[in-house]
Order: sequence, then C-alpha cells, then structure tokens
Amino acid sequence: MSGLLSPATAGSAAEAATSDAAFLQALLDAEAALALAQAAVGVAPAEAAAAITDAARDAARFDLRDIALRARDGGNPVIPLVADLTAAVPESAAPYVHRGATSQDILDTAAMLVAARTLDLILADLARTAHATACLASTHRDTPMPGRTLTQHAVPTTFGLKAAGWRSLTLDARDRLRAVRDSLPVQLGGAAGTLAAIGVYGEGGDGSDPALRVLTAYAAQLALREPALPWHTLRTPVADLAAALAFAAGALGKAGADVLTLSRTEIGEVSEGAGGGSSAMPHKANPVRATLVVAAARRAPGLAGTLLGSLVAQDERPAGAWHAEWEPLRELLCLVGGAARAAAELTEGLRVHPEAMRENLGLTGGLIVSERLAAELTPLLGRARAKAVLTEAARRTRAEGRPLAEVLADEPALRGLGPDATLDFDELTDPARYTGSAGALTDRALERR
Amino acid sequence: MSGLLSPATAGSAAEAATSDAAFLQALLDAEAALALAQAAVGVAPAEAAAAITDAARDAARFDLRDIALRARDGGNPVIPLVADLTAAVPESAAPYVHRGATSQDILDTAAMLVAARTLDLILADLARTAHATACLASTHRDTPMPGRTLTQHAVPTTFGLKAAGWRSLTLDARDRLRAVRDSLPVQLGGAAGTLAAIGVYGEGGDGSDPALRVLTAYAAQLALREPALPWHTLRTPVADLAAALAFAAGALGKAGADVLTLSRTEIGEVSEGAGGGSSAMPHKANPVRATLVVAAARRAPGLAGTLLGSLVAQDERPAGAWHAEWEPLRELLCLVGGAARAAAELTEGLRVHPEAMRENLGLTGGLIVSERLAAELTPLLGRARAKAVLTEAARRTRAEGRPLAEVLADEPALRGLGPDATLDFDELTDPARYTGSAGALTDRALERR
Amino acid sequence: MSGLLSPATAGSAAEAATSDAAFLQALLDAEAALALAQAAVGVAPAEAAAAITDAARDAARFDLRDIALRARDGGNPVIPLVADLTAAVPESAAPYVHRGATSQDILDTAAMLVAARTLDLILADLARTAHATACLASTHRDTPMPGRTLTQHAVPTTFGLKAAGWRSLTLDARDRLRAVRDSLPVQLGGAAGTLAAIGVYGEGGDGSDPALRVLTAYAAQLALREPALPWHTLRTPVADLAAALAFAAGALGKAGADVLTLSRTEIGEVSEGAGGGSSAMPHKANPVRATLVVAAARRAPGLAGTLLGSLVAQDERPAGAWHAEWEPLRELLCLVGGAARAAAELTEGLRVHPEAMRENLGLTGGLIVSERLAAELTPLLGRARAKAVLTEAARRTRAEGRPLAEVLADEPALRGLGPDATLDFDELTDPARYTGSAGALTDRALERR
Amino acid sequence: MSGLLSPATAGSAAEAATSDAAFLQALLDAEAALALAQAAVGVAPAEAAAAITDAARDAARFDLRDIALRARDGGNPVIPLVADLTAAVPESAAPYVHRGATSQDILDTAAMLVAARTLDLILADLARTAHATACLASTHRDTPMPGRTLTQHAVPTTFGLKAAGWRSLTLDARDRLRAVRDSLPVQLGGAAGTLAAIGVYGEGGDGSDPALRVLTAYAAQLALREPALPWHTLRTPVADLAAALAFAAGALGKAGADVLTLSRTEIGEVSEGAGGGSSAMPHKANPVRATLVVAAARRAPGLAGTLLGSLVAQDERPAGAWHAEWEPLRELLCLVGGAARAAAELTEGLRVHPEAMRENLGLTGGLIVSERLAAELTPLLGRARAKAVLTEAARRTRAEGRPLAEVLADEPALRGLGPDATLDFDELTDPARYTGSAGALTDRALERR
Repeated sequence: MSGLLSPATAGSAAEAATSDAAFLQALLDAEAALALAQAAVGVAPAEAAAAITDAARDAARFDLRDIALRARDGGNPVIPLVADLTAAVPESAAPYVHRGATSQDILDTAAMLVAARTLDLILADLARTAHATACLASTHRDTPMPGRTLTQHAVPTTFGLKAAGWRSLTLDARDRLRAVRDSLPVQLGGAAGTLAAIGVYGEGGDGSDPALRVLTAYAAQLALREPALPWHTLRTPVADLAAALAFAAGALGKAGADVLTLSRTEIGEVSEGAGGGSSAMPHKANPVRATLVVAAARRAPGLAGTLLGSLVAQDERPAGAWHAEWEPLRELLCLVGGAARAAAELTEGLRVHPEAMRENLGLTGGLIVSERLAAELTPLLGRARAKAVLTEAARRTRAEGRPLAEVLADEPALRGLGPDATLDFDELTDPARYTGSAGALTDRALERR
Repeated sequence: MSGLLSPATAGSAAEAATSDAAFLQALLDAEAALALAQAAVGVAPAEAAAAITDAARDAARFDLRDIALRARDGGNPVIPLVADLTAAVPESAAPYVHRGATSQDILDTAAMLVAARTLDLILADLARTAHATACLASTHRDTPMPGRTLTQHAVPTTFGLKAAGWRSLTLDARDRLRAVRDSLPVQLGGAAGTLAAIGVYGEGGDGSDPALRVLTAYAAQLALREPALPWHTLRTPVADLAAALAFAAGALGKAGADVLTLSRTEIGEVSEGAGGGSSAMPHKANPVRATLVVAAARRAPGLAGTLLGSLVAQDERPAGAWHAEWEPLRELLCLVGGAARAAAELTEGLRVHPEAMRENLGLTGGLIVSERLAAELTPLLGRARAKAVLTEAARRTRAEGRPLAEVLADEPALRGLGPDATLDFDELTDPARYTGSAGALTDRALERR
Repeated sequence: MSGLLSPATAGSAAEAATSDAAFLQALLDAEAALALAQAAVGVAPAEAAAAITDAARDAARFDLRDIALRARDGGNPVIPLVADLTAAVPESAAPYVHRGATSQDILDTAAMLVAARTLDLILADLARTAHATACLASTHRDTPMPGRTLTQHAVPTTFGLKAAGWRSLTLDARDRLRAVRDSLPVQLGGAAGTLAAIGVYGEGGDGSDPALRVLTAYAAQLALREPALPWHTLRTPVADLAAALAFAAGALGKAGADVLTLSRTEIGEVSEGAGGGSSAMPHKANPVRATLVVAAARRAPGLAGTLLGSLVAQDERPAGAWHAEWEPLRELLCLVGGAARAAAELTEGLRVHPEAMRENLGLTGGLIVSERLAAELTPLLGRARAKAVLTEAARRTRAEGRPLAEVLADEPALRGLGPDATLDFDELTDPARYTGSAGALTDRALERR
Repeated sequence: MSGLLSPATAGSAAEAATSDAAFLQALLDAEAALALAQAAVGVAPAEAAAAITDAARDAARFDLRDIALRARDGGNPVIPLVADLTAAVPESAAPYVHRGATSQDILDTAAMLVAARTLDLILADLARTAHATACLASTHRDTPMPGRTLTQHAVPTTFGLKAAGWRSLTLDARDRLRAVRDSLPVQLGGAAGTLAAIGVYGEGGDGSDPALRVLTAYAAQLALREPALPWHTLRTPVADLAAALAFAAGALGKAGADVLTLSRTEIGEVSEGAGGGSSAMPHKANPVRATLVVAAARRAPGLAGTLLGSLVAQDERPAGAWHAEWEPLRELLCLVGGAARAAAELTEGLRVHPEAMRENLGLTGGLIVSERLAAELTPLLGRARAKAVLTEAARRTRAEGRPLAEVLADEPALRGLGPDATLDFDELTDPARYTGSAGALTDRALERR
C-alpha cells in the first residue's frame, strides 16, 4: 500500500496499524495466544506454546504475498498461514499450532487486535482535537459572527459556540469509540462455535469446562474481552465498530464542512494554518485538511452500511457476509485514523479572523438582528403594526443601502420611541449585542470532560 | 399511508406511532411544551400557555394535507402549522405561540418524541422475542443439529445454542435502543442556536439565564433530556438512533436468515407457526415472518447511511442535510417496529423439528464428526498416519454409502484400537456426543438479563 | 400519505403516480391485461376477460387498507387482491382471474407500470429544466464570474458555462431515464418462471408455445416490453431504474448545490425566484427549492444501494431481497419526481446577478488571474524570475490592499514591459478577459439536443 | 497491497491494473499525452513533448511512496508528481510539463485509463462466464429440478433455465460495462474548466479555438473519448462506472447465491469444481468461489453509493466530493475484476448433479406439481370441489408419507377420472413433465449474442 490515492491516510500511524503487515502480525499474535492459553490451562505443553510464540513473534519472517495468493484456495489467509507457522516450529510443537481453532477464530481475533490498536491512535488524535477546539471556544467565547441557516444570515452567534459544538461532537465520537474499544472481544469457538475441538483435549480435573477456561485465558493473554458466546455469526463487535467509526467520521466532518464554508474567498472568517498549494495557481491556499476530513466523512457511511448488512449472518459461518467485512472494516479504521489526524492538524492550526466575522455581520445593514427588533417593537406597537413597520424598514434598508438603525430613526411610527426615548437603535441593531446565551452555552459545554 | 407495499409494518403499532398524524401531534406537543415551559419560568402568561396547550391537544383539528402542501413554500411543515395554531388560539395567546423558537426546534423535538414513543413499542416486542428465544434455547439446550459453515455441514451444534445466539443479539439490540431511548433530547436553540429570542423575553430575577431555564423546563415538560447545547447541527441523537435501529434490524435479520435456511424443503428443521400461503400453490407454507424480517434488515443500512451522512451539517442549519433526515428516520423507526413485531411472532410461533435435525446429522454418514476422530486418532497413530487413514475412510464413506463407523471398523490400521479395544466407533461417530460446550455456553448466555 | 415530512414531493404528480392507490390500480391493470392476453390468444373466453377488465377498472372500488392488512399473511398484497377481484366478477369469470400467474408476476408488472407512468412525469420536468438552463446558458454566455475550486477563487469562468454544465447533466439524466423507460418489461412466469401454469391451458394449434404467445399479448396489452426470460430473480429492470434514478437525483443535486453556494449572503450571485420564508426572521429568503433538490440527492444513493443489493436474488424467488425492493423503488421514483419538479421551478425562476459576480471577481484585487500573468511573464522573464516577481506582487496585493495591476506597474523588474511597452496590466488583470474557451464550450454544449 | 484480506482479487490481473503503480503509470501517460497533444496542435515544441514522453514512460523510475507522502500537502498526488516529472526532463522541456492543466485533468484522465484497462479484463472474464453458462444451459436444457420460491419447493423448473438466467445477467453486465467502456472520456479543462491556460498559448492560425484542438488531440492520443465539456464537476463518467460495476457485481452475485444454496449439504445439486478446504475439517469442500463472488456483491452497493453521492459536486471543483471518489472507484474496479475471475472459474468448473435434482424433486411426494393437478381437476370437478379434494390429498400425502399419485388413485371422488379413465396420475404427478416453457425459454435466451 503506497497510499497514492489516499492523502488523508498516507504516512499516518493508522495506515501502519491497519496494513497487511500489521494484520499478519495480529493473526500471529492470535495463534500464539491460543497456544499460550492452552498451556496455561494445562492442556498443551508449555514448551510447545513457547515455541509457537517464538515463531509467531515477527511477521516479517513470513511471506505476506505468498500467503495472500494461497488464501484464494480456501478463501481466507489463515489456512496458508497455519501451514507456514506449523512448518516454522519444531515437530514436537506442530500438533499444537492452531489446535482446536477455526480460521474465523484467528481472523476475527486479529481484526479486534487491529481495531484496538488503531482505536488507541484515533483516540489520541481526538484528544488533540478536543483540546484545540476547547482553546478555540474559550478564546472566542465572545467573538460574534453571523449565524447562517440554509446558507443565509439568520441571527448572530459566536465563534466560541461554534467551536464548542465541534468539541462536543469530538467528545461524542471519543465516548463512542472508547466504549467500543473497551468491549472488543476475542473470538474462539472452533468449527461451529461449540468449542468442541478445544474441549476434546481437556481433562478439567476440577469439573470445570476446560474449553471455557481456555477461552478465558486466551482473552487474558490478548487483553481483549471474553465474549459470553462465540460470535462467528453474532456480529455485534463489528457492527459496533462500524457505527462508532462512521459516527466519528461524520462528527469530524461537521467541523471540516464549517471550515470549508468559513474559508471561502468571500467569507474569509477562518483559514487553515497551512493551506495547500495548487498546481496551477500560485496565489491559492486551499483548505486541504478540511477537504480530506470531509472526503472521509463521505465515504464512511457506505463502508459502515456494508458492515451493518453483515449482521445478517446465516448458519454457523456465513458464505459471503463474513468475507465482505474484512476490507471495509480495515478501510474504515484507516480512514477514520487519517481523518482524526487531519482534524487534529486542522483545529490546532486554524487561524480565526474576528475582523472578517465582524465585517460580515454588517453585510445586511443590521437586518441580521431583525428578530430582536420584532421582539422589542411588538410590545410597543402590537404584532401587526410592528411587523409592517419592520418589513418596510427592511425593504428600505436593502433598496437604499442604508443601515437599518438609520432607517428606523427616520421612521415616523417610531418617533418618541427611538433614540431620544426608550429605544437605542444603534444598540438594538448591533449584532454583537444579540448573541443570546451563546456565552453561557459555551461555558457549560466546556465543563464536559 | 395504507401500507400496501409494506406488509411488515401494516397495522402495527409502530406504523401508527410514526404516521403523519402522529408526527403532527408530536409537533403540537412540542409547541405546547414550549409555551408551558415559558409560563413555568415566568416569561409568558399561564393563561396563554394553557390556551395553546388546549388548541394543540388534538392533531385531528388540523388539516394535515393542507399543512403538508403549504410546507413547500418554506420547506418545512412547522411554518404553516404555526400559522394554523396561532389562528386557533385566542388573540391574547397568539404572541406566545412558537415564541422564541425556530422551526427546527419544533421539528427535531417532535422527531425525538416520535422516536421515544416508537422505541417503547419496539422494546416491548424485543422483550417478547427475548423471552421466546430464551424458551427455545432452554427447551433445546441439548437438541443436536448440524453446524453449518459456508453452507456445508461442519460439526454438530445444538439448536439451543443457536437460539441463545438469537437471544443474545436481541438483547444487544435492546441495550442499544434503550440507551438511545434514554438519551433522546429536546431541541431548543432559536434561529441560530443561541437561544437569543428566548432570552430576550426573560427577566431572570435571580441572575440566572432565563433561556436556559426555559430549556430545562421544556425538557421536563416532554420527559426528554436537556441537551448541553442546541444540536441543530450536532446530530448525535439522530446518528445514534440510526446506528441502534440499523443494528436492531440486522440483529433480528440473523434469526430471520437462519429460519429461512432451516425451513428449506430439503432441511425442514424448523417451520413458522403459521406459514404464508401462496397465490398459486395450495401446498406451500412460506416462511413469511422470516422473509419480512430479512427484508427489513436489507433496507436498514441504506436508510441509516443517509442519516449518518447528515452528521456533516454545515453552518447553524444545513440546507439539505437536515431535510434529508426526516423521511429516513421515520422509515427506519417504522421498519424496525414492523420487524420487531414480525420477529416476536416468528420466534413465539416457531415449530422445531428435532427429528429432522437428527436425520440431517446423519446425512454425511458420520463425516460431520471427522474433526473429533482426527483428534482421537492423532495421539494413537501420529498426525500424518491419522490424517491418511481418515481421508481414505472419508472417501470410502462417500463412495460406498456406508457409515463411517462401519468403514473404520473394517480398517486394518485401526485393529486393536477399535470396538474391542479403546475406541468405540459408534460413540465416536455419534454427532449427539460431539456438541462440545454448547450446553454450557447456552446456560451462561441465558444468565444474561 | 399526507406528505407532511416531504415538502419536495407533496402535491406533485409523481406523488400521486406512486401512491398506494396508483399502485393498486396498476396491480388491477396487470390482472386485466393478463386476462385479456389469454383471451387474445384464445385460451380464455373473451367474456371472462371483459368482465375481469371491467371489475379491475377502478381501484377505488377496492378497500386499500383492508388489502394491505390482509397482505401480512402471505407477505404480499396480490393474494388478498386476487381474492377481492375474484369476488367482484361473475362466477363464470372467476376461474380466469389471475390464472396461471404468481403474485410476483402481477406485483412486478405493476411496479413497471408505476415506473413508466412516473418516469413520463419526470422526463417532462427534466425537459423544463433543460430548457430553463439552456436559456440561462445562452443569456449568460459571456457573463464572467469567479471559478471556485476547493472553495477558493481559482480563475474566472462564466455563468453560461456553469448553466451549460447543469443542462448537460440534466440531459444525461434524461437520456438514462428515457433508455430505462423504453426498456421496462412486463413480468410473467408463473410459480417458478417456467410459464407452466399458462401453458397448461393452451392448445397452440399452430404448434407454437401458447404460453409465449400469452406473454407477447400481455406485453402488448400494457405497452411494456416483452422480456426474453421471466425476471423474477434476474432483476435488471429494477437495478437499471435504481441506477438511472439515483443518477438523476445526483445530476439535479449538482445544480442545487451550486445555487446554495451562489446564493449565500456573502456571495449573492443568484437567488431563487421565490425564496422561502422563515418562521422567525422576516427578512430571510431561503433557497428552498435548491435545498429540497439537494436533500433528495442525499437520499437517493442509499435507496439505490438497497435495490442494487437485491440483484443477489436466490432461487426462483428470493425470501427478502424481492420484498426489500418495493418501498425503496417507489420512494426513489417519488423522490426523483419531487426533485425534478423542484429543479424545474428552481431553474425557471432563478434570478442571476451579474453585478455581484463582477464584484466578487474583484475581491482578490486581480489575483484571480495570476495564472494568466504567469503565462505571459514567463516568456519575458524566465520561469523562476516570473514566479518570484508574481509571488512578491501577490503578497503586496494582499498586504497593501491595492490592485495587482497597480502593484505590477510599480514593479521595477517589469519596467519597459509594462503599460508603455508590451503589457497592458489593466487588461491582463481583467477577469472578464480571461475566460478562455468558456464561450465556445457553452456553444457546443448547447448544440446537444 | 499484498491482498491479504482480499482473496477474491489477490493475484488477479485486475489487482495489478488498479494498483498504485498502475495508477502512477496512468498519471504519467496522461502527462505525456498532454504534451504530445500540444505538440500535435503546434503550441509546444515536438522535442519537449518527446522528452516528456520519454521521462514518463516508466513509472518505476518514480518514488511512489514519496509522492504519496508529499501528496498530503496539496491533497492530491499530481502536484508532487509534476515536480518530479519536471525534474526528470531537460530544462528546455520543463515549461511544457503539465502546461495549462490542473491536477484534476491528470487525475481524472488517469482514472479513466485505469478504468478502461480494467474493464477490458473484466469483459474478458465475463465472456468466459457467458460461454460457460451457455454450455450449462444447453447441456441441461431438459434437466428438471425443483423450482424454489421463498425457500420452499414451488413447481419444477430446469437447470438449463437457471443457467440461462445466469447467462442473461452476465450479458446484461457485459452490455452495461461495454457501453461505459466505450464512453470513457479524457479530462481537460484547466484550473476552472475553461481551458483558459491552454488557449493562452495558442495561435490558432485558422481561427479555430486552439484549446479545443488540444483537447481533441489529447483524446486521440489516449484513445479515450473527447468530452463535450470538461467534467470536473459533471461526474457522469464516474457515476456511470459506479452503476455498471455495481450491476456487474450483483449480476454475478445471483449465480453465486444460487450455487451456495444448491451446494448445501442437504441439497447437493451442484458442487464447485475445486472446493476450498477447511483449516479444521478434512472432509469439507467449501463453495469458495461462490462465497467470494457473493461477498463482492455485498460490498459493491456501498462503494457505488459513495460515487453516486459525489455527483453533487459544488463549484468548479468540490472540496471533498472529488477526493472521496478515488479509492471507492479503484476498489470497485478491482473488486468486480476479482468477482469476474471467480465467477468464470466457478461456472467453468461447476459440477451438476441431475440425480440429486431428481431426488429432491421427489421430496414432496408429488406435491410439487399440485398446481398442475389443480388445473387439470378444476374443469372436471369445479373449482371448489377440486380444491377440497387436493387439499385433503395433500394432507394425506404428508401425513402418510405416500406419493400423491397413490393417494389420488384411492380417492373416491376421482374414480372414473383416474388411471383407467382420462387421468394418468403417475404422469400428472411426474415433475419432469411439468416444466412448462422452460426449454423454449432457454432456447430463446441462448439466441442472444
């Protein structure tokens, strides 16, 4: 994998953690743990387990491409890997390689190991983003900017509240990924999920089920959870990963989409720390990180959908639904890893331009606070009259290009209510004074840890 | 909605709970709660709130179709609904209708109400399925049947373990849906999520932010959660619903898919309590419930994918991403509601045929336990010799149509090891004696509550 | 269906054409055609066919809801409908109702009828959009505007070229939908697609296969195509519909997305003819049509994905894959119908603001044509020098807020090359003079019919 | 890419054709063609074009990984590639590298080259499948087997008709892919799709637009089509690829799904030529090819959905929608390539077991032809009586385990109608005599070329 078509993930730790080499190592780790678990429970010799563990220590000793090609015959890479691993151990240890397991036990366990290792990387990058957005939110707690709905200026908001929202989604993603991380189980069931081929070797002198003890030891060995049941066709762990990863991609995508909009040439309220160059136009600085984050968010739902579809897994091992999981799960882990890195860089480097926000707030000549004026004038004039006055004032503001405050000051209906009386139109039409509870909301959002 | 094309949901409680009429009522409930909350906090007269609540009590008083048609102008149904509701209250209450809110506050809150109400129905049906599958699992704890992987007989399993797996997925779905159910928030933020138009009316004599107090009261009124931030563009609640509902559809789909396979004419190990008829063939009894459950599971990922995609919500209200949520969310709730009903009926009515399972176990003449024989013979003959003997025996079993036990008894290499010595081939080739830890696994799965 | 949550489709012709009532009528049309076809071929009495046709004429005579509810038993609505239709004809005609057919024959044929009728509506609306965009393209053939890439001003383009692009996609959608429209087949195969129950009644005096003659007559009756094979599990027609409809949604979505961007408050280059109001802000005019078009485009891929997934249709009729098609196909037809109406209204009513385009072109002080200057200066100064000069000029343009032309005129390195020599900086930095082949491309795109 | 997790594609020609190395070569081919086209039109020196072509000849000269890593800055690999290519040519040729183009021109063109090359491979494998299924269909034109609907025996069909259906879908896939193959265009538009930076260099002595002439020459150089407009944001070619590839995956998936069902241990009507082994059970022969084909079909819709979603491409180049296309398009090409190879192997090697089909036909004791009996008895007994007689006979057939023919022969109501009269129950209940038009349909399907 050179990553030529994947700038979001190229060179990232997640790319390495989800590579074929990493997967091969995880397969080997699972085989080693299985032998060690049987030894720990006393149904296999410790020497054999040690020999297997030793042989499985370094994936680089195995021929990745050759295994991949031989995987075609049986439809999965564990079959040729077991052959190679068996050949790599002393003859005395050979019978204990993969003993009692089915290919899916090893492949699923390896997938969980890869997931656990990649999620740790992702969580670290989310922590960076959470920190960066917290800084943005507190720094700009009171920086007013236009609130935009359906692309149009609505009423003012603050950049602090916007950044607090980004952080909130980041923490939501963190919580979901962390919960899944902590729940990832090993897989062990044998050919049809009954553990029969594990139990056949056990004595269980104490009357306990030896296969279940192997399962417990196996999970302990890999620091993954022990499942209540083999989950060959109970794909909760994969579906949970899919949902949490797609969530994370979308959550980061929200910040990415906002940055794209706010860094438009005409808006210019933020810019990326280091904008990407263009092959043709020397003056351009593209919001590259935001673009890559958004691109990842566009891809995640399709990948997650395939994984959710594989919940419908027939029999004791499905013909297709399982095989359809492997690449999308790996891809989703890698993609979210890349997006998390890009989002951390994006938020850490983001440059905010309060003066552009302020300038944009003035674009409608004060109409951006028409909601406030309606609220203020209604008690004074009655609903119908207030609405009529404001509608006409809005029309004139647009047509004459004058500020709303000035138009209102001229309005005969407001005489005696205006500047020299109860209403200060300049203040009432100042966007910075109509940010509502934005500050308080930002504060309470920042309390979340 | 007549449900002509949706037999899975037609006539279900979930269909009613997600209907346009139910949605309209939820919109009205949200408007009433908003007025009551403002009254509770002291920023609106109690009489006005009471009048609004009264007018909003019965959706049937409003012209659903007319509202739907007028929704085209502004792109959402709240705008015309507010007009009609305002017209339906005394003039003194009119200014308090929808005061301080934006359309999205009401629509999102209504969606959460509809979701909460539908999830309660779904959870009740999942409880039925959990109970029915628990009964199946304990009744058939020791009923052996062929374990099938990649469509082929692998080794024996039990129907109890299979049913325990269905229950496990059902409980996983329950846990995820219940967690989402308990987290559903109200929506309130005003035009751009700052609560400015709520706060403008408040006095907050005690110095507290009146808008935040309205928010708290609003949530209490509707028995939904108070969000830390307005979530107009922080779509965690919708994404969580999407993920949990798609999970539930897939989880039930697993049981459906198994029933479809097991009720095939050639397999006949289970049959639906009341099979569906055919328009052309009087003898047919189709597994209709299972079919409908599986069909729902095929549709859920696509719907959930759209909702997950809407996490990327620009600005303070996105132009399109929000609008694209409404129908898929409703559809997903309704669909999972239908699937949950069908799954409850399916599992409660399922007829299990242990004798067919037993007969199918014999189809390979004992080869289904070849794994066990390999384990037993290896210590006696060595790995290579054991494998060679078994491969030849398997060939003869298939070619001669004789039971494996008989073929093995004839095998010279096994003389002195066989019946008259340590090995009882009849027992060793009895599928019912090679179900491993299936019983123990079933027991521990049933301990989950 | 009241359409409360679907402003894009509420009240549209496509909504009516895809309603349950329309589907019921199509089912009846299929039953009538089947009887007439058998009569035409001489295997059923003409009187019976006439009686069936008469009874099937008006869907309103049947109880839609009751049929929907009874559809649960067998999992499809044809079974109860056949019962009701049989009850509605004279006893002598009863044996000829649905004779030889299976439910899927009728349901699939009805779906094709509904599709054909809805596609005709969609094609008409696409023609409106094609016309409106052609007018926009020719009117604004030479209206310069900023070309934007990755959200940043790149080089100038024209609004004509943009509108020509919208038209091109509209015509692509038209071509794909028209091709599918013309290929829609009837379905007829009987219980397992062999036509056995049709053929059993036939004599075929001329030796020809009577069932095939019925098939031909059936297709002729409904003005749909005769398929080479029954397609109960060969779902090409449904997959083709899915792909073409999703394409159309996306194609229209491109124009919608552009309108959303261009009508942003800060950009203001276009506005919708009749912007949608807001429930809270009197001054707002939202791009509602564009929003609804984009929302439709977000939903289409998920629906199409489900339909494409149903290509994997087991056996002679799949248990689930077929049932999962019904609602998504109907929804996709309706949704694209709504989007096509909205797009027609959008493009017909679009107001274009060339003066805003012109103003935005000036935002970068001429940097938007830096590409051109690089091309002009390179031959004069050499690549490296030209680049250095321009980079410095760009820096000064941004820092000093002066036009690029002015900065360049001051540049010592360009003395003797500037205004008084070969280079006219005002012309060279005039965005309107750097629109390349936009005009020629627009012309050739408009030649397409 | 080692393909460890992708046995369907590992080692396939499609894997190589879609590799990063292949993509890099295609990028270089596009750059070379651009220079040659400019030379051909007379706007660049032939020597420069030759030098660029020479430098671009072998992708192995470039450092793939280094380019991938440097692609992060600008978000696409063309920017660093252009730098490296420029460095690799003589200084005199340097100004002509990538001249007038934008990154997207090169990347999109390269994607079309990769698509064209991969589609050629896929089409060759589809031809193999079409041939193999044609042989199966004609060999088994009259081989009866149970028709199955909703998993239950319905009425008989033939294996020939089933194979003819597989072929029909294969040819549908071929037609769609071939049409797309023939329509693939080059991309050339420059920074904003106006071709301005191409045209600026041209003289066009004959008055024709030099940029358009370069476009024509560029397309000729690469043997791709010349588009009417640059399609930077008119993504018809990508959407068409997505739809056709997803169609192909699903079409092949139908055959895969049928093979999976028919090779079930209990059904045994077909088996793969070389079944895959199991890591644990020596006797198993898994339908591995069918499994991999089905797995591919499960993944395709999600990938296609992402690509269809990218039709909504803002501005003159979207920030994200374009970047989200690259990997899914490559993946879809590779995946369908792998599926096509697997399907060819599957159908070429398929072993058909007519005797198992025959045996399965007898499983219902003749009830599989109850439809036929209903048709025969109705004229003799009247509808109601015929139905009652058959229902009772069906009940006894099942309860007593006797053949339907025997039960009917005992039936008093049928005395005088039975064996010694007009009805031959043995013949009437012979499944092989109730295959309807299966033979004729197979014949006509095979006529398609």
